[in-house]
Amino acid sequence: MPKKINNLQYKSPVVGQEISCVLKGIDKSYLSNNKKLDSLIIKILKEEKFNICDVSSYSFKPRGYTLLVLLKESHLALHTYPEYDSVYFSIYSCRGPNDSLETFEKVKKALNPKELIHYTNNKIKVL
Amino acid sequence: MPKKINNLQYKSPVVGQEISCVLKGIDKSYLSNNKKLDSLIIKILKEEKFNICDVSSYSFKPRGYTLLVLLKESHLALHTYPEYDSVYFSIYSCRGPNDSLETFEKVKKALNPKELIHYTNNKIKVL
Repeated sequence: MPKKINNLQYKSPVVGQEISCVLKGIDKSYLSNNKKLDSLIIKILKEEKFNICDVSSYSFKPRGYTLLVLLKESHLALHTYPEYDSVYFSIYSCRGPNDSLETFEKVKKALNPKELIHYTNNKIKVL
Repeated sequence: MPKKINNLQYKSPVVGQEISCVLKGIDKSYLSNNKKLDSLIIKILKEEKFNICDVSSYSFKPRGYTLLVLLKESHLALHTYPEYDSVYFSIYSCRGPNDSLETFEKVKKALNPKELIHYTNNKIKVL
């Protein structure tokens, strides 16, 4: 019989992972097509068994795009800078100390950047 | 006469600031009242002249709350862990190298944590 989860027993995982970076010189098709970028990110999150609770996005004038994905396991944020061929990417998740790494690697592989800068990978304990 | 901003001339600011941390032992009234927490964050963002494009939030069962604010100047993310009296907070903005600091200080002052852990403050260049 599965264990009962109620208000008294349930506790969030204690250790999460926070990855953030700027990907420079990426595949330009993702900078000119926000829907393609959305589809890529959502596909990878689903592959990685994340639970998507909400998606918020905004197309700026004259250019630039922001995508925020609210996950049961925390969140993903992405900002494009088409004028610099760059994307800021961050993910924070709380299923364990290496939870976001595969997601990041898949995004990086697809965007195919010439350079990766400001990469940080932090273990976060909320307790 | 103001300068014209068009597709050719406009470029995003090059330097941004990314602050993230966990605030432990905060004022419990913000952990039991998500609307109070929302109001605080929105009030501070407005005071700091951020432009709010979208707000996404989710109340988890049995507890826990996530708030994502999509800003013209990037984003703010917040996750509550009522069972640990903790909040994960992050803000990334792109109006200059110290853009988010005052916002963070105001949030910290209001939440009044006993302890601040995993504090990072990174300057981000997208160029």
